[in-house]
Amino acid sequence: MLGPLMHQWKERTRPVRLERRFEFESYEATRNFLDELGKLCESLKRYPDISFGKTYVNLTLASGNEGETDEISNDDKKLASKIDQICQ
Amino acid sequence: MLGPLMHQWKERTRPVRLERRFEFESYEATRNFLDELGKLCESLKRYPDISFGKTYVNLTLASGNEGETDEISNDDKKLASKIDQICQ
Repeated sequence: MLGPLMHQWKERTRPVRLERRFEFESYEATRNFLDELGKLCESLKRYPDISFGKTYVNLTLASGNEGETDEISNDDKKLASKIDQICQ
Repeated sequence: MLGPLMHQWKERTRPVRLERRFEFESYEATRNFLDELGKLCESLKRYPDISFGKTYVNLTLASGNEGETDEISNDDKKLASKIDQICQ
């Protein structure tokens, strides 16, 4: 079960993963978010699948332990909430 | 018909688009490519759909004139070859 703050993330199955879409006012805002996200990923050595265009970013957090699980790990939830903080 | 240099790009239909996958040795190399790509996109005001992970980038160049065409535009081919130059 996701915590209260995480309502914008969607839990998916097969494989278990967390997904969220971010939308921005401008390409510059999208780039700034991606730059911050890049630093966070590098610091945590976690590399989610990221797709983006001019004013959107879609994130997919596949469970850290490569699919042998059917539950969202605490690691994934922590990563998701750290990503949320970039936008606050 | 794509020019000789563009053999790594794939032409797709419905909608007409160009796709290419780039692979890199490290996350740092992936980030460097994305930074250069970001500058190019901003300078040309063209924003392809980009998806990436630790060591790959997938690019989709949807035709510049929003789908009313069934041919890859010269604009798209020019953009594709400029993107190729980032890697040379």
